[in-house]
Amino acid sequence: MSIKLTILGCHSASPRQNAFPTSQFLEIKERSFLIDCGEGTQTLLRKHKVQFAKIKHIFISHLHGDHFYGLIGLVSTFGLHGRENDLHIYGPKGIKEVITLQIKLAKSWTKYKLYFHELNSKESELIFDDKNVEVYTIPLDHRIYTNGFLFKEKKGERKLNMDAIQQNSEIEICDYHHLKKGKDFVSEDGKTTIQNKKLTFDAPTPLSYAFCSDTAYKPSIIPLIKNVDLLYHEATFLEDKKELTEKTKHSTAKEAASIALRAEVKHLILGHYSSRYDDLNNFKEEAQTIFKNVSLAKSGEIFEL
Amino acid sequence: MSIKLTILGCHSASPRQNAFPTSQFLEIKERSFLIDCGEGTQTLLRKHKVQFAKIKHIFISHLHGDHFYGLIGLVSTFGLHGRENDLHIYGPKGIKEVITLQIKLAKSWTKYKLYFHELNSKESELIFDDKNVEVYTIPLDHRIYTNGFLFKEKKGERKLNMDAIQQNSEIEICDYHHLKKGKDFVSEDGKTTIQNKKLTFDAPTPLSYAFCSDTAYKPSIIPLIKNVDLLYHEATFLEDKKELTEKTKHSTAKEAASIALRAEVKHLILGHYSSRYDDLNNFKEEAQTIFKNVSLAKSGEIFEL
Repeated sequence: MSIKLTILGCHSASPRQNAFPTSQFLEIKERSFLIDCGEGTQTLLRKHKVQFAKIKHIFISHLHGDHFYGLIGLVSTFGLHGRENDLHIYGPKGIKEVITLQIKLAKSWTKYKLYFHELNSKESELIFDDKNVEVYTIPLDHRIYTNGFLFKEKKGERKLNMDAIQQNSEIEICDYHHLKKGKDFVSEDGKTTIQNKKLTFDAPTPLSYAFCSDTAYKPSIIPLIKNVDLLYHEATFLEDKKELTEKTKHSTAKEAASIALRAEVKHLILGHYSSRYDDLNNFKEEAQTIFKNVSLAKSGEIFEL
Repeated sequence: MSIKLTILGCHSASPRQNAFPTSQFLEIKERSFLIDCGEGTQTLLRKHKVQFAKIKHIFISHLHGDHFYGLIGLVSTFGLHGRENDLHIYGPKGIKEVITLQIKLAKSWTKYKLYFHELNSKESELIFDDKNVEVYTIPLDHRIYTNGFLFKEKKGERKLNMDAIQQNSEIEICDYHHLKKGKDFVSEDGKTTIQNKKLTFDAPTPLSYAFCSDTAYKPSIIPLIKNVDLLYHEATFLEDKKELTEKTKHSTAKEAASIALRAEVKHLILGHYSSRYDDLNNFKEEAQTIFKNVSLAKSGEIFEL
């Protein structure tokens, strides 16, 4: 069980030198996901030494430029690199049209297969599901249709208690598979039965990461992100600009912290700072008046659980 | 009469750290033009201190990503800055659809007026014309429809020869306007006539700049760019990779130099280097076997005439 989150870009609006719009690279239980893809993301991937080939699934929260204008360039670069692996893109309805139009105009059809998973539901839905990980949408409240994403490890197999197993000479290696699945041991002749919990330990507790950007304060997401190990929540403003949150549909650092507190998450990361603010430490300080375990997203920073 | 050309990006294909795709900012006779707009152009504009408000006309050579994936971000940033001035975009047919689709999906209609001038002619045509400057397309030979652009100063007014004028007391300030236009002086009573050339000097010779990227070796452009003061011509490869030029429709440094020589231009700038090459000086050396006055485009470099 492990999560490794690399922050690529973490600022709002236009890219500036040393202030790049949103993108994150998440590694969770042997799966790799790119989350959002603002202009310049491919340069940040190189800078922070993320292997392009690891990216097989890209999740786009919404179609504002600071979250997706880097996507067509990345799709195009994959093609120049001779990529052969499929690429899956999850994002709001319209994303397929705009990416394929640009490919068509450039006459640069990718040799790899490109799958679009267009989203338009206002309810949370399961959009990725394999043996290791599930990904759910988190419907957010922004100026256009926007989703956050909840990445959840699936509970793994039970761990073998080798000390206990070796005390029972009837148990053979070929039985381990069933034990890991939680089945009791039954000897071949049916005479001996041993309860599974005497031969195995619980599987490690699955970890989870919730990505919430961009959104106005939206307490109705709390049940969806309850108890997550890591929450990224946008904090475009401080409370001094609270009057801007209604029109722009963004949050303050205090509001992000309030969501973290009420959802009882373990760790909160803030980002998507407005360029109005020079000293980002004020975001952390404001959030910590509500919720203690707060970090600031910074380009290149890695959060590992 | 003056030309100031700022190189923003000058490499081919994908943006990398310190290797940005094509974009240039041209100031010519009180007019400012952005030429091509690869991903990251807006960051380079900031880095090289080009005022965004100066950009009123953007010329896009073709719809490959390394020449235009930064355009939607720039259009969007102009909006965020509260721009009110009109913006004119000149580029291949399709450019309007792709930019407006992205604006529509983001629900971020610009408050300023956006005018698209879509190009589809295979012949050179005049696409910009005001009292100071003319811009013509230079049809190029690339994998998709592509134009270079020829920027020509218009000949200005004649310069007053104040020494000669002051020797003729009949000439008054209100006559200067006509003299600058080339008219002979005729006194109010009609008795005195002085030839214009005795009272004025020729206007300075107009300057011209030709931008040619991307293209295979295309000698038929030579009459269009004949005698220009400054020629930017792509040189994606050296002669060691000449076999790639046919498929990719690019040029070698030697071919670019051959165009410069035959067109009798005054100064050649090379750019659009393939990432295969580490030492860019080889481009200059190869070109100089054919044509002496060669410079290498580098991000941030300024060429002034």
